[in-house]
Order: sequence, then C-alpha cells, then structure tokens
Amino acid sequence: MTLPILYNCPPSGNCYKVRLFAALVGIELEIRNVDLAAGAQKTAEFTALNPWQQVPVFQDGETVIWDSQAILVYLAETYGKHDWLPSDPVGRAKVAQWLSVAVNEIQHGPADARLVKLFGYPLRYDDAAKASERTLKIIDDYLSGHKWLATERPTIADCAAYPYLALAPQGEISLEPYPSLRRWISDVEALPGYIPVDQ
Amino acid sequence: MTLPILYNCPPSGNCYKVRLFAALVGIELEIRNVDLAAGAQKTAEFTALNPWQQVPVFQDGETVIWDSQAILVYLAETYGKHDWLPSDPVGRAKVAQWLSVAVNEIQHGPADARLVKLFGYPLRYDDAAKASERTLKIIDDYLSGHKWLATERPTIADCAAYPYLALAPQGEISLEPYPSLRRWISDVEALPGYIPVDQ
Repeated sequence: MTLPILYNCPPSGNCYKVRLFAALVGIELEIRNVDLAAGAQKTAEFTALNPWQQVPVFQDGETVIWDSQAILVYLAETYGKHDWLPSDPVGRAKVAQWLSVAVNEIQHGPADARLVKLFGYPLRYDDAAKASERTLKIIDDYLSGHKWLATERPTIADCAAYPYLALAPQGEISLEPYPSLRRWISDVEALPGYIPVDQ
Repeated sequence: MTLPILYNCPPSGNCYKVRLFAALVGIELEIRNVDLAAGAQKTAEFTALNPWQQVPVFQDGETVIWDSQAILVYLAETYGKHDWLPSDPVGRAKVAQWLSVAVNEIQHGPADARLVKLFGYPLRYDDAAKASERTLKIIDDYLSGHKWLATERPTIADCAAYPYLALAPQGEISLEPYPSLRRWISDVEALPGYIPVDQ
C-alpha cells in the first residue's frame, strides 16, 4: 500500500497542523522532510508541486494539495472524518471562519513572532507582537464561552489554530494573560492520539 | 419572507466578495451598511456579532457568520450551489487552498496597498507593494495554465480572490505585467449576473 506523502519540515507549525490531525484520527502518512535551509523548496521540482515554495505539500497519487488548511479539509473529506469537519452548512461555515483566523490573524501574530525569534526571519517583530496581543485577547474571550473553536467538539479548526497558539512562547509571546486559551490548549493536548510538535 | 442580512460597507472588497457571489447565483440579501468611519463596528452590539469588529457579518435567523470566505461557504452550502463549491474531497480542498490565498497573500498584498492609498490606513505600503508583486506573479503564472482558480469552472474561490485582485490599481499596483490575471479578471466580469464593486 502506498501511503500519501507529506512534504514536511519538523519545526514548521503549518506542517504540524497536518501531522497532529493525522495522529488524532489515525491516518498514516509518509513524511518527507524538505531541507528549507538548503533552499530545497525553491527547486523547479518542488515549485511544480507548490508555486508558493512552502511546506507543507500533500501528495496522494496524482492529487497535490498545498496550504495546511486545505490539506486538513482534504484529509477529513477523504477519510470521512465528518465529526472533525461537519457536513451541515453552519458547521462548515464555522470551521471555515476559524481556518481563516489560522491563516491570517494567527499567522501574522504569534507565528510570525516565532519565525523572527526562533529562525531569524526578516519580519517586523513589533508588528507581530502587537497583532498577537489583539488576536490572543479575542480568542481568549471567545474561549471563555466556548469549549472548542467551531462546534461543540474538536474539529480541524482546532488543529489549524492550535500549533502557533500553543507555540507562541517560542516567539516570546506570553500566554499567561489568557486563561481560557490555556485551558483550551490543555484540552487539545488531552485528546487521544495527541502528539507534540517535535514528535 | 425575511431575507438574510449582510452587514456591509460599500467600498469593502471583503463585503463585495459576498455581494458578488449572491448576485452571480441569485441570492437576495438585506444590505445593512455599517458606518466604519463613525466606529459603528466597535459598538458592543456589533462586537457581539463579530469579535474582530470587522465587516462583513452575515446573519440568517439565529445564525451569525463572520469572515467573508466563511460566508461564501455558508451561502453555497445553504443554497445548494455545489457547482460553486464542489462536494468531492479534491474539489473542496482546491477551493480551500484559494480561500487561504484570498485571506492571506491577497489580503496582505493588493488589499493592504489599497487600504493605504484609498483610505489612509496606517499600514506599511512598501511591504504591501512588495508582497503584491510576488503574489500577482504567482497567480498570473498559475492562470496561464488554468481558466479558473480551483476547478474547471468558477467557484467561490474566484469570488473570494477577484475583488482585491481586480481592485489592485486602486492601491497603485499595476496589473499590466500580468496578462493571464487580466484575462481571468475579464472572464469573471463576463459571468452572467456579475456586478461591479460600486453596485
């Protein structure tokens, strides 16, 4: 049996979104690490897979999907995990809301801050730190009244949001002021099958 | 009959995504304009609808959805427009890919540039212009081999990407170097039911 391939970079939170969801629902992947430091994502071969020259990329036979949120959608749909991606319009829309937050506010807040502090990316740390403060406050307020992000149970939205929120301290963004966010992080980490980023 | 409500701001490209899709598929909406200049999005009442204090917000009875991409998903699902949002895993994932691009690369490229030039938002124009160049080049290359973004026909991904790409010149980002992007813009504008941003 040929496993689907995840083009991966171990410390990437975007790749971790996919590995985490696969672990939680028991999907086996072939992990192929891409040497970003050596520029392997800029080769013609890799660019043909993903014109944005980023990991993760997912390959299942002839199907190639880039963007971690889209890969989560693909996996949930293909493996029929409709508890993790509801079929009803409201559930689908609520998941889509939080996938957008993962791509935008979480990326350009705590994820960018981590890129600067952990890997020296040439991004504006002060902008990322300021954006993080607003984003974490709004999410913390929301989670004070909701156990999970999109529905009454965990969905792919939680898998998409969790990595860069939980890893915010690596970007020197403290989670201390956000008790409901920390409660939710603990709840994700207590899910059966959970794996940390470095596993 | 009570129409669903779109909390709207006329020049907002994110609101236009929703109005455009509704026009293309014939969904009637009640448009309620929100006076952003007067800070109407920061009231407690509006914040209860959308903690991010942004338009658009969509309200259908007790269902409230924020984020323009999520509203497109909701409308396509609720009104059964599966030609605009495919039901198969690959189609759904390809749409999700481009919804992410609309939220991230297009927002933080041409949309941010337009916010600076048209409305004087305190964002970094040079960063937005540089990001626009990369984003428009990648999308132009992609569209040189694809008629539409996600599938063989227009989908909600095209509705999500079109506004800020077509309006890029309002942010002083030229579309002249991107012939395939301009061809796709013309194709969107030729769709039956198409409306411009100011209609």
